Amino acid sequence: MSTQVIVLNGGSSSGKTGIRRCLQAILPTPWIALGVDDLIKSLPPSLTASGSGIALGQQGEVDVGAGFREIEAAWTAGVAAMARAGARVIIDDVFLGGAASQARTREHLDGLEVVWVGVHCDAETAAGREYARGDRTVGMAASQAEIVHKGVVYDIEVDTAKTEALDCARAIAAAVS
Amino acid sequence: MSTQVIVLNGGSSSGKTGIRRCLQAILPTPWIALGVDDLIKSLPPSLTASGSGIALGQQGEVDVGAGFREIEAAWTAGVAAMARAGARVIIDDVFLGGAASQARTREHLDGLEVVWVGVHCDAETAAGREYARGDRTVGMAASQAEIVHKGVVYDIEVDTAKTEALDCARAIAAAVS
Amino acid sequence: MSTQVIVLNGGSSSGKTGIRRCLQAILPTPWIALGVDDLIKSLPPSLTASGSGIALGQQGEVDVGAGFREIEAAWTAGVAAMARAGARVIIDDVFLGGAASQARTREHLDGLEVVWVGVHCDAETAAGREYARGDRTVGMAASQAEIVHKGVVYDIEVDTAKTEALDCARAIAAAVS
Amino acid sequence: MSTQVIVLNGGSSSGKTGIRRCLQAILPTPWIALGVDDLIKSLPPSLTASGSGIALGQQGEVDVGAGFREIEAAWTAGVAAMARAGARVIIDDVFLGGAASQARTREHLDGLEVVWVGVHCDAETAAGREYARGDRTVGMAASQAEIVHKGVVYDIEVDTAKTEALDCARAIAAAVS
Repeated sequence: MSTQVIVLNGGSSSGKTGIRRCLQAILPTPWIALGVDDLIKSLPPSLTASGSGIALGQQGEVDVGAGFREIEAAWTAGVAAMARAGARVIIDDVFLGGAASQARTREHLDGLEVVWVGVHCDAETAAGREYARGDRTVGMAASQAEIVHKGVVYDIEVDTAKTEALDCARAIAAAVS
Repeated sequence: MSTQVIVLNGGSSSGKTGIRRCLQAILPTPWIALGVDDLIKSLPPSLTASGSGIALGQQGEVDVGAGFREIEAAWTAGVAAMARAGARVIIDDVFLGGAASQARTREHLDGLEVVWVGVHCDAETAAGREYARGDRTVGMAASQAEIVHKGVVYDIEVDTAKTEALDCARAIAAAVS
Repeated sequence: MSTQVIVLNGGSSSGKTGIRRCLQAILPTPWIALGVDDLIKSLPPSLTASGSGIALGQQGEVDVGAGFREIEAAWTAGVAAMARAGARVIIDDVFLGGAASQARTREHLDGLEVVWVGVHCDAETAAGREYARGDRTVGMAASQAEIVHKGVVYDIEVDTAKTEALDCARAIAAAVS
Repeated sequence: MSTQVIVLNGGSSSGKTGIRRCLQAILPTPWIALGVDDLIKSLPPSLTASGSGIALGQQGEVDVGAGFREIEAAWTAGVAAMARAGARVIIDDVFLGGAASQARTREHLDGLEVVWVGVHCDAETAAGREYARGDRTVGMAASQAEIVHKGVVYDIEVDTAKTEALDCARAIAAAVS
């Protein structure tokens, strides 16, 4: 059976978006791409500015409330439904809970053929890129670089500190059937 | 039963996005918002630059290919699944096929409590706003202003040429249970 | 002598940007457009996040420090130099100091042929549009709607609460020689 | 005398913007940043969609007309005036004409203390990053990678294919007095 979902997991500023764009450009069939940033953009202001939603601390730590978790679950169920309805989907996510986040996502994707991708980038390099982007709360990159991979099991792992996004995408594409 | 989905239908530059943001801000519970623009942003370049995808003509007419239609169907199925999983969803769309587009969407939303909203804006005003936005292909607004409403049945209709977005949103919110 | 600079002054969310885009589209010769938003985008993070720069209060009030004022003066001198070097320039600004801000700008534009435009929008309408945009600190629109016009002298005034941006631009264009 | 202007010259997708943001963050005094992308954003549609302005060919080649050249000269004169008025300015540019472009810029900056920086990135890497960005006409990166450096004389050169943006910025900052 051929791959239906590609999950890219990595910390903030680890380079997921660049890889996702390259994947969309080089994969031979059309893949749509949806990630946690798209979910956040779809939220009402009440969930991005309150205790029950998602909030950024002074050091870039991310606090996630119950209101956000509920909507995130419905969102992921919907993205899984897109894949079951025939769309091939690239999901990019930040597994703040490591293995527990993967378990939650795995449950939603039950029955689908998934390629799990670890997008690594050491904390120092990611923090430098966060600076260079200029549109992210400083500190997120460093605080997430390691924890998002804790206990997560991958089919393939790439390292954007050593490999350009396009070459990472080529390696991933080779693992997609 | 309370409303689960709000569908905003209107031509390009008719003011759907402004209404959607106001709705998210004033509705008492959290609603996520997803529209055809989000779908297009999620597409691979092969579908936004080819005959099988979606393409813009010189006069702003939109050509939609079979490849796009397939993915759009899966997308809408997924958005409906989000609503079934408990997220309240504002969908904004451009019913290029009028009544036929509504029928297609209605099928996907089967069993859900939907409020259908017509977002009107006369062609001349919409064309002027398209100019003022500066980020849309000129001609889309005028060419879509009328056709997207052909044969479509609404629960409530608003006119952004006569009413500010926030007041339109207030009228819609009053129709949401 | 023909007009060299058009200054659009109005509060946040009063509709200056839409008018500016329409002006660029309808004026028969090429005009470049530069405004206070462009200045802010060009600033280092140290000036957008500190007491000596520019800061937004909880109610949308804008605090401007000495560091910002110094750079703003150099910026305006530069924009005036562009006009003296032959570029026709649309400047959009927010005269937080009313007549004093105009005097400061007038000094920089000394010797240039300027059309001064007041862009009005009542506080309630502007506040609603601020909501609908979703990318501005809520409160700026209302707090600036009146004060930016205090004591300012115009060649032409438009009201975006009553007139579409394109029609405002047409009225302004008629005053440009 | 201390540095008043930093000129970053490099091809499309060579990494100038990332370096510029890092420079603004690490330099001890406030520097404003203005580049050719800002100039292009300030132009009217007539100059970005016509023979007398700037146009992109199918292979990513950039055609520059007389109308654009005139405004560009006035723009650069204005940016130089900002520096003379006391603002410290980072300019990022694409010297499509190599040495001739530098000569033109040097003339505008006459009398100012300038640090000239070459931002290198080999064509293949830049082309890959252009892919990953997804917002640039494919082909620009490769076609500009070499030609923009032809005959240009630098105070310092960096290579973003081998060095992260933040480290490039640190090297440049060390050359700024």
